Amino acid sequence: MVKCTVCGVREAFYARRYSGEKFCVKCFLESIEDKVRSTIAKYNMFRFDDRIAVAVSGGKDSLSLLHILAKIERDFPKASLYAITIDEGIAGYRDEAIEIASENCESLGVKHFILSFKELYGYTLDDIVKRIRASGSKLTPCSYCGVLRRKALNTLATKVGATKIATAHNLDDEVQTFILNIIHGDIFRIPRTGPAFDEEPGLVPRVKPLCETLEKEVTLYAYLRGIRFQENPCPYAGEALRNDVRNMINRLEEKHPGTKYKIYRSAEKIREAIKDRSPKIILNQCKICGEPTVSEICQACNLLQNI
Amino acid sequence: MVKCTVCGVREAFYARRYSGEKFCVKCFLESIEDKVRSTIAKYNMFRFDDRIAVAVSGGKDSLSLLHILAKIERDFPKASLYAITIDEGIAGYRDEAIEIASENCESLGVKHFILSFKELYGYTLDDIVKRIRASGSKLTPCSYCGVLRRKALNTLATKVGATKIATAHNLDDEVQTFILNIIHGDIFRIPRTGPAFDEEPGLVPRVKPLCETLEKEVTLYAYLRGIRFQENPCPYAGEALRNDVRNMINRLEEKHPGTKYKIYRSAEKIREAIKDRSPKIILNQCKICGEPTVSEICQACNLLQNI
Repeated sequence: MVKCTVCGVREAFYARRYSGEKFCVKCFLESIEDKVRSTIAKYNMFRFDDRIAVAVSGGKDSLSLLHILAKIERDFPKASLYAITIDEGIAGYRDEAIEIASENCESLGVKHFILSFKELYGYTLDDIVKRIRASGSKLTPCSYCGVLRRKALNTLATKVGATKIATAHNLDDEVQTFILNIIHGDIFRIPRTGPAFDEEPGLVPRVKPLCETLEKEVTLYAYLRGIRFQENPCPYAGEALRNDVRNMINRLEEKHPGTKYKIYRSAEKIREAIKDRSPKIILNQCKICGEPTVSEICQACNLLQNI
Repeated sequence: MVKCTVCGVREAFYARRYSGEKFCVKCFLESIEDKVRSTIAKYNMFRFDDRIAVAVSGGKDSLSLLHILAKIERDFPKASLYAITIDEGIAGYRDEAIEIASENCESLGVKHFILSFKELYGYTLDDIVKRIRASGSKLTPCSYCGVLRRKALNTLATKVGATKIATAHNLDDEVQTFILNIIHGDIFRIPRTGPAFDEEPGLVPRVKPLCETLEKEVTLYAYLRGIRFQENPCPYAGEALRNDVRNMINRLEEKHPGTKYKIYRSAEKIREAIKDRSPKIILNQCKICGEPTVSEICQACNLLQNI
């Protein structure tokens, strides 16, 4: 029997290749929760009295985050926790995810708020995809959904009085985004896509408590905790370049364990080095919806005009 | 017939995917030479009276560089050009490369200087590899060869009175090195691996005039100019991680033409942003050989001690 290198007693079931540690189930679960606590502390993500809205899609990452934050929140009686979900309107997919999200919220005693694209924009994502496909546009469903969901999350978080939005981006997401920014030559986006996004007027600050946890370990956490989550992928294909970058980083990590953390640390150093050099962003009010934007019309309204 | 988009007259034989240009042979060759001229100007690589030592291995990159610089040098009567070659001592490989290098130098009327590992260090690379393999060391032949060749190049360049060393690193090499530095978390190496390496006492400044030219276009240049070069790869296997990174970047470029240039531009911006933040390097004299080093003993002497 291979023993857990943390407790030295129970049988190990999982080897963390990049560190050489071997874990029993109990010590593994604790290691994930400890990692999230230390990430929160490192980036000063929360105040003791924050009203935290967790962006819950119904997938493994967001539901694991909700479970972990619900646990941590018990130690902070003045803080409060909500779940917020955006219903993009993807028939046969999002409805199931929302039901699963609600079920988790109920079992945790966390209030759940939902806002749909249909309510906010007048269209479901399915409506939008039909129209963009008919128009022959080169834009993908993801490019619409990303912008519209981001705005919807901010709207819903503001409505429920949240002082922070916690999103479930994991280490893999962060590393992919960093490499994508480099591939796009968009290095000044690097400081704006960090673990704790600085406050900007009109935008609820965002934090990413899972940003230092490997995706596969978040998945393992969800399975071991018996969290029910939606396993089906979104029917609209993902972004081609991100998929290529994901595959390539996974291949590197497989051959050279620890690569993802090394890239993450490079991203941190580069973020720190260039944050003062990034062009200052001046936010205006969107002439259509009044929400903050760098242009005259926000990206969401701009996309909606072109449907 | 598809016409060359530059001259509009001759038949195109090559499409540059990232720019959409199509080239006839003549315009393609000129485009490469113009690119090298503009890279030299952009980074102020040379003075009008430099004594330039081109590091020539005998491969496609270094011989193309030698041919292009020989052409450019004709416009600078006070400048002079030499070829310098390090003979690592790799039986059945390097000897052929040196013969090819000498032949090219002769046809161009460029003086050729050679220094061997055996003369400088007392061992050929073959000797060293035998010893490290026998000792069970995890170090690869490349890790020895890289350090020892770098020092040997500096020694030989100093001996021939060169004021610059021109190496034939191409765009692919530069982009791979940048990504490798990120993967290693070594971001402060990024400013020290740029196109024009700042002067440091005791080290001949290095420049990389091909650093903005795609590897495949350098290869094409060599073939079209009828340059004879060594085509066999080095018998000692390359570095595993660099090979993985090379393959992954090539795959991305294939799917998304222009990716390499975008990564290159990100590297430039990051280099610019962090160069003042890099720890200042203080060079000492190696206690064994007297050459400049950041430690007490230079890397080369350190490796040689452990053979």
